[in-house]
Amino acid sequence: MKFGFIGFGEVSHTLSNILLSYGFELMTSTEGRSKKTKELVKSLDIKVLDSFEEVASQSDILISANSPQSALAVALKYGSLTDGLFLDFNNISPNTAKQIENYIGDEHFIDSAIMGKVKSDELNLYFSGRKANEFVENMRNFIKDNDFPGVKVNIKVVSDEVGDVSKLKTLRSSYTKGVSALLVETFETAEKLGLSEDLWEILALTENRDFESSAKSRISSSYRASKRKYEELNEVLEFLDGVDKKRKSKIMALATREKFEKLKNRKN
Amino acid sequence: MKFGFIGFGEVSHTLSNILLSYGFELMTSTEGRSKKTKELVKSLDIKVLDSFEEVASQSDILISANSPQSALAVALKYGSLTDGLFLDFNNISPNTAKQIENYIGDEHFIDSAIMGKVKSDELNLYFSGRKANEFVENMRNFIKDNDFPGVKVNIKVVSDEVGDVSKLKTLRSSYTKGVSALLVETFETAEKLGLSEDLWEILALTENRDFESSAKSRISSSYRASKRKYEELNEVLEFLDGVDKKRKSKIMALATREKFEKLKNRKN
Repeated sequence: MKFGFIGFGEVSHTLSNILLSYGFELMTSTEGRSKKTKELVKSLDIKVLDSFEEVASQSDILISANSPQSALAVALKYGSLTDGLFLDFNNISPNTAKQIENYIGDEHFIDSAIMGKVKSDELNLYFSGRKANEFVENMRNFIKDNDFPGVKVNIKVVSDEVGDVSKLKTLRSSYTKGVSALLVETFETAEKLGLSEDLWEILALTENRDFESSAKSRISSSYRASKRKYEELNEVLEFLDGVDKKRKSKIMALATREKFEKLKNRKN
Repeated sequence: MKFGFIGFGEVSHTLSNILLSYGFELMTSTEGRSKKTKELVKSLDIKVLDSFEEVASQSDILISANSPQSALAVALKYGSLTDGLFLDFNNISPNTAKQIENYIGDEHFIDSAIMGKVKSDELNLYFSGRKANEFVENMRNFIKDNDFPGVKVNIKVVSDEVGDVSKLKTLRSSYTKGVSALLVETFETAEKLGLSEDLWEILALTENRDFESSAKSRISSSYRASKRKYEELNEVLEFLDGVDKKRKSKIMALATREKFEKLKNRKN
């Protein structure tokens, strides 16, 4: 099996390291990419082709890992050039996943995601779609056991429905961003009262052991990426509208979006 | 030092067990109390007086642990009858704490709370007020070390300001109830989509190890006690209004209240 990558950021880098260790043949193109990406690709044992069209047509498995914004365009442009499978890892909305499936067909498209941290000692790969089971079985024939050094790879097929992985990713995002918004709000008030140190201590008593460090990283990423989080909440809400029109089923998600909107505007 | 209890529920029971093991003399009254409370008190080595007035006037330390609703009335009725200290453990609002202080004086009143679980192997006692440090030092002279069997007792004086412990308790409540509201909302949507089992699995990957059990207990208590949680959010918001009038500083708290209001109304 030959794997092709469209886009070569953190996700592609992590996946390619694992696939190389299993002995798969990998290819990509650096057509129009940054110097940094070119150097990264050159440092790995990956075939570099002249164009992404060639990558797509020569791959058995084509992996798209760019950004949610470019995911649909990439799928429309390259997805139908492969005879094999097209895997989208872009954190797309369930709606976008359906559009891609309609365009390139359910015999080619697998809704894919890394759940949790991309760089960690455990990598959790989730797939859904008509061909997801077959693909994963196929992979398991190549990979005798999870023997990638230092990383435990967990693979799960959620269902044969394209969209289920995107839905799970969206629900997860809605929850974790809500927690971030709560943390920002609660600690801004504590700060005004001069009680933030005591509050950290008190919440750590009943939340988990590494609560403070994980919560602080959520707070700083909320300030840093408030615009992106606000946009993601727009997608979350569009999706939730499709599940249930009633306001009461999305009170917290609406508040989370409003919170990130205010954070975003404050920065400008 | 003689300790008196007004109210004898879970908090008083836990505190009395610890105080008895340290050899302190305890008293309470069962005047007008339930059969269950009478039996509980009878089973412990606690002096039972005819009235709470007597309890108050004979105590060096008077502990009020009833309910947030009755806290102010109890303080007004019995707080000034003691020559010693009056400790309120009722999860009162910062505003109520100030009212009690104004009435019985800062030389008598200590804002007190158990942070975290009341029944656990670790008990965290927080105090604030002008006399808090003196009280805690005094206690430490009686208690050579934390030798209550099976329970680690942590004692902390936050500041010499009555209200600081109540503020911390309120901020904690605002955060944890927000998380509960988020959990309820997210999992109701996941349930509609038939994806709740997968979502539990995915959130457990990146949240803490016992995420699922703690989150499930938050969800069930949200449904069970939605009315009480809604009322507590009213107090939280009243407090937050005093800190900052702007809506943007309490977006998540407003949403949390709205969420519990809907849950409460659904039950009726």
